[in-house]
Amino acid sequence: MRFYEEIASIREQVKSGSSFELPDSYRNIVICGMGGSAIAGLIFQDLFSKVPVTVANGYWIPDYVDENTLFIAVSHSGNTEETLYGIDRARERNAQIRILTSGGKLSDFNEKKIMIPGTFQPRSSIGYMLMPFLNTFGLMSEKTLEKLEDALTIIFNHENTIKAVAENLVKSRKIPLIFGLPPSPTIAYRWKTQFNENSKMIAHSAILPEMNHNEIAAIPHDLDPGRFEFFVAGTAKGRNLDRLRISQEISGFEFHGIPEIDYGTIPEIFASIVYGDLLTYYAAVARDIDPRDVSAITELKKKLSS
Amino acid sequence: MRFYEEIASIREQVKSGSSFELPDSYRNIVICGMGGSAIAGLIFQDLFSKVPVTVANGYWIPDYVDENTLFIAVSHSGNTEETLYGIDRARERNAQIRILTSGGKLSDFNEKKIMIPGTFQPRSSIGYMLMPFLNTFGLMSEKTLEKLEDALTIIFNHENTIKAVAENLVKSRKIPLIFGLPPSPTIAYRWKTQFNENSKMIAHSAILPEMNHNEIAAIPHDLDPGRFEFFVAGTAKGRNLDRLRISQEISGFEFHGIPEIDYGTIPEIFASIVYGDLLTYYAAVARDIDPRDVSAITELKKKLSS
Repeated sequence: MRFYEEIASIREQVKSGSSFELPDSYRNIVICGMGGSAIAGLIFQDLFSKVPVTVANGYWIPDYVDENTLFIAVSHSGNTEETLYGIDRARERNAQIRILTSGGKLSDFNEKKIMIPGTFQPRSSIGYMLMPFLNTFGLMSEKTLEKLEDALTIIFNHENTIKAVAENLVKSRKIPLIFGLPPSPTIAYRWKTQFNENSKMIAHSAILPEMNHNEIAAIPHDLDPGRFEFFVAGTAKGRNLDRLRISQEISGFEFHGIPEIDYGTIPEIFASIVYGDLLTYYAAVARDIDPRDVSAITELKKKLSS
Repeated sequence: MRFYEEIASIREQVKSGSSFELPDSYRNIVICGMGGSAIAGLIFQDLFSKVPVTVANGYWIPDYVDENTLFIAVSHSGNTEETLYGIDRARERNAQIRILTSGGKLSDFNEKKIMIPGTFQPRSSIGYMLMPFLNTFGLMSEKTLEKLEDALTIIFNHENTIKAVAENLVKSRKIPLIFGLPPSPTIAYRWKTQFNENSKMIAHSAILPEMNHNEIAAIPHDLDPGRFEFFVAGTAKGRNLDRLRISQEISGFEFHGIPEIDYGTIPEIFASIVYGDLLTYYAAVARDIDPRDVSAITELKKKLSS
């Protein structure tokens, strides 16, 4: 399957009605996942804080994990080493475990699980992995879904512009520096990882307003700020809109943003995800490299297991 | 005061015996702070998870904040806009509030507080801001303090090497890309912010093992990976040591690290902080710019309040 179709499949993925079966009670949530499988948990963590949510991405789980913890292990392949480590520890602590996977070792586990299609790359399955969180915790509705579909249409209608931005970026050989914003600064991190995996380009992400306390001191005085291309992955609002405007003035650079879409949190998040997906896809195309290929990661996993 | 003395003052700062007065009971901890005042909270979050810890760095606090929350507001100046916003919200929810500041509006607040010296820049007060967390939650002992002082001695003895690394970095005009590691990946973020504020250089930080799922796909194939200088801010152990070794093989670059110090978590964290402080200080010196100056941040604050 061509990689473009993987990205376009988001239109179908967002219709997924899957939900986690919630335990009778829980005091906190821990989501365990890495890379493309961690993103859904990180976005959910941005959006939901009725109880504490921690994303564990490494060989560790929080000390507080116990029988009052809803522990959600997310691994697209079902074989992620760090996630298998995490679920073993969560079992020892009698956490209430749920699994989100497309196969592998996790699919043989006894815990309640959501199975998603294994057709696409993990990073292209963001809809399948994020929707269960949004559905389960009351962040979706019929109306939100309608607006979400409208927002996606706007982005796909913008495709030629995005393609031109990507081509200019590659031609200029600049390094993407992406600023994330509330309500989901994680989206900038998503763009960064998509630049890494799709475009095979090193990229950097940061957060507004936090960047007003550090990056802003560097940009106007950097050894060569002209070698960076500045992006904003999201729509600034309220005080952060003032901060964004002033940050551009002081840095002396324009920060390129996605088209303004005032459709509410969830549609805006998906619109920004897809903008980044298309941008990084067309950057790969402009470089004449395969956006699907992540042979360095495969090679690393092979060397680790030998 | 010369900025070098601010960095060297860490030797005195770590002897600070300040502690927060703990409430009788609390179920979770929220730390509110930005920039140099957020780092202590982020490091503490890496190290402590007996109860959930969230660091709120922006105009928000978690929905779960209530009378069972220990809410710690950290602002060196005492006037940080986002932190003042956070403490107002925490009061509305009847959280149990503590303050860590050197003055400003926060010093007039009635809540129990720790006052620290306002002599240094916020980022140079990391010892004053981190020690209360370590003291209060049982992460320090006499023996740890002794080892910490030994670890600092090793780093300061290494100063000429660090200076040479900084000079080469500036001469090469490369962009620092710093990998953080457990137990405190935040240290790489600290280096990044120090490059921003001290050296006025854009820098990028990432985390191992997470970078094995994204950055590693980019480094060998980037448009120009030779324009980056790779650092490791910490000492890799166990499975992450294998990952680090293989990551270097696959990327084709050596990742420069701090000298190996096997002195335990807290001493190693401070050693790595000071390595980054000296590296970014000498990078500023090599560029012939003032490491103390952060006029862009001052200008931004002025424009925001006008």
